[in-house]
Amino acid sequence: MLQAEEERELRLKRNEETLRELSDSIRRCNIRLIGIPEGEEKEKGAEGLFKEIIAENFPNLGREMELQVTEANRSPNFINTRRPTPRHIVVKLAKVNNNEKILRAARQKKITYKGNPIRLSADFSGETLQARRHWNEIFKTLKDKNLQPSILYPVKISFKYDGEIKTFPDKQNLREFITTKPPLQEMLRKKLIPEKSKKGKGLQNPEQRR
Amino acid sequence: MLQAEEERELRLKRNEETLRELSDSIRRCNIRLIGIPEGEEKEKGAEGLFKEIIAENFPNLGREMELQVTEANRSPNFINTRRPTPRHIVVKLAKVNNNEKILRAARQKKITYKGNPIRLSADFSGETLQARRHWNEIFKTLKDKNLQPSILYPVKISFKYDGEIKTFPDKQNLREFITTKPPLQEMLRKKLIPEKSKKGKGLQNPEQRR
Amino acid sequence: MLQAEEERELRLKRNEETLRELSDSIRRCNIRLIGIPEGEEKEKGAEGLFKEIIAENFPNLGREMELQVTEANRSPNFINTRRPTPRHIVVKLAKVNNNEKILRAARQKKITYKGNPIRLSADFSGETLQARRHWNEIFKTLKDKNLQPSILYPVKISFKYDGEIKTFPDKQNLREFITTKPPLQEMLRKKLIPEKSKKGKGLQNPEQRR
Repeated sequence: MLQAEEERELRLKRNEETLRELSDSIRRCNIRLIGIPEGEEKEKGAEGLFKEIIAENFPNLGREMELQVTEANRSPNFINTRRPTPRHIVVKLAKVNNNEKILRAARQKKITYKGNPIRLSADFSGETLQARRHWNEIFKTLKDKNLQPSILYPVKISFKYDGEIKTFPDKQNLREFITTKPPLQEMLRKKLIPEKSKKGKGLQNPEQRR
Repeated sequence: MLQAEEERELRLKRNEETLRELSDSIRRCNIRLIGIPEGEEKEKGAEGLFKEIIAENFPNLGREMELQVTEANRSPNFINTRRPTPRHIVVKLAKVNNNEKILRAARQKKITYKGNPIRLSADFSGETLQARRHWNEIFKTLKDKNLQPSILYPVKISFKYDGEIKTFPDKQNLREFITTKPPLQEMLRKKLIPEKSKKGKGLQNPEQRR
Repeated sequence: MLQAEEERELRLKRNEETLRELSDSIRRCNIRLIGIPEGEEKEKGAEGLFKEIIAENFPNLGREMELQVTEANRSPNFINTRRPTPRHIVVKLAKVNNNEKILRAARQKKITYKGNPIRLSADFSGETLQARRHWNEIFKTLKDKNLQPSILYPVKISFKYDGEIKTFPDKQNLREFITTKPPLQEMLRKKLIPEKSKKGKGLQNPEQRR
C-alpha cells in the first residue's frame, strides 16, 4: 500500500471510531423497552407507558428519583411487517444517572408489563452492539464456571480470577492473558480462536438491531 | 476499481450516512425562527423572544406545555454583512415532543412577530436540507393535483393515491412505482428524469443553509 | 493523484470536520473541573461536589440560576496509574447559557476547593483542543504587549489593534493581516512561520487531553 493510502486508511478508521463513540455517548441516556406489544402506547403515550412500568416494577426507585423523560418513541419509525416481534420503545431520560440506576435495578429482577415478561436494556450503536455480541460465548462459559463475568460499557468483559477482578477490552488481550493460566486456557481456548481478519467492517446499519 | 478501494469507498459512504443521521438526530429538538430582524433579541434574549412568539401565536399550546428551552442563539455566530436577511434564531427545546407540537401547529397558520410574518421551521443537517429540496418540484405538482403530499422526517415524500397514503424514501422508488400508474407517470415523468450521477457529494457545508 | 482519489480525500476531510463540529457541539454544555483529588466525590457524588464548588466560589451566580446538572463523572472512566494528576470531573449542564455564565465568571477569579486552587474549563474535542494550543505562543506574546488577546469558541484568536478588536480563524489569516502592519510583523513573525504541512492529521485520540 502506498503511504498516502495508508494514511487515508488510518483517518477512515479514526473517523469510524469517533463516530461510534459519539453514537454511543448520545445513546447513554436511553433505555430500550423490549417486548411491549405494538399499540399498547396508543392510549397513554410511550412516556406514560414507561413511567407506569417503572412505578410497577421499581416502586422505590420511582418514588426516590424525579423521572424526567426527554423523548419516548417506537424505533424504528415504521413497522416492518416481516418482523414478528414488536418494535422496541426507546426512552431518553434527562439524567444519565437515573438511566444507570434503572438498568442496574433491572438486572436484579424479572420485569413484567401487565403480567407478561419484558426486558429493559441499554442502547448502543449497531457496531458496539455487534462487538458486545462477540463476547457472548465466552460470557456463557465463564458464567457456567462461576467466574462471575460481566460486560462493561461499552465493550469490555470482566470476571473474577484468583480472587481479583480482571478486565479485558478485546479478545487479543484475553488471549495473551490466558497463555500463562492453563485452567483458563483449557476453558476458553476454543472460544478465542482468531477470526479471519474482517477488513472494512466499519459502522453497521442500526437496522440489524432487530 | 481495486477491491481495497471499493471497500474504502463503502466505509466512507457509511460514515457519511451515520454522520448525517447523527447531525439530524441532534437537531431534532431544535426549532428555527426565520425572519426576526437582527438585534430584536438584545433586550429579552433569544429565549425570551421565542417564548413571547409562542405565547402570542399559540396561546393554547403555551399554556398547556411547560416550555423548557435548553439553548437559544442566532446561527451562525457572526453576521455575514453580504447577506441581506437576518440570521436564523435556533431554539433547542428539552422535549422533542413539544418541538413537534409547535411545528405541527405552525404549519396550520400564519405566524407573526410584531405584526410581521415570520416562519418556524425544523432544523436539519445541510445534507438533509438539500435532499429535501430535491422533492420541491414534485411536491408542488402533487399539491396542484390535490394529492395531499407531505415531506416526512427526514427525507421522505408521501401522498394520497387511490385512497391510500403512499410513502417513498427516494426518487428511484417513486420512479418504479409510477411505471404501472399511467396518470401518475403523466404527471411526474418530467420531474423524475434521473440526474447525472453526482459522485462524491457527501456532507455539505451547513453554510449553504442561508 | 487521480480524480477519484482526490474526491475521496475531500469527502474524508469533510467527514473529519463535521465530526469535530459535532463533538464540540455536544461538549458545549460541559464544564471540566481540574485538580480535584481522586476520591473527593465519593461522599456527595460528582454532582454534589460541583454544586458545592459553585456555591462557594460564585455565591451570587449559584443563587440566581437554577443549576440543572445532567451528568457528572470522572473522565476517563478508569484511573491510569501512570498519571500523577487526578482525572478531570466532567459536568454536563442542562443549559448552555449557565455553562457560559460560569466559565465567564471563572475567568475573573481564582477558584478554590477546600482552600486549594482548582481550574474550571470548557470541554473540547481532542482536535479542537490541539488547534487551540497552536495559538498558545502567539497568545502569550500578545498578552505581554497588552493587546488583550482572547481565544474564541472554538478555535479563533482575537485581540485589540488600533482601537479595534480583530478576529482570526487561523494562522494563515493572521499572517496575511500582519504583512501590512510592521509593528505586529515584528512581534509575531517568528511565531507564525508556516509549519511543515501535516497531512492526514485528522481527529486525534481524546486521550491526549491529559
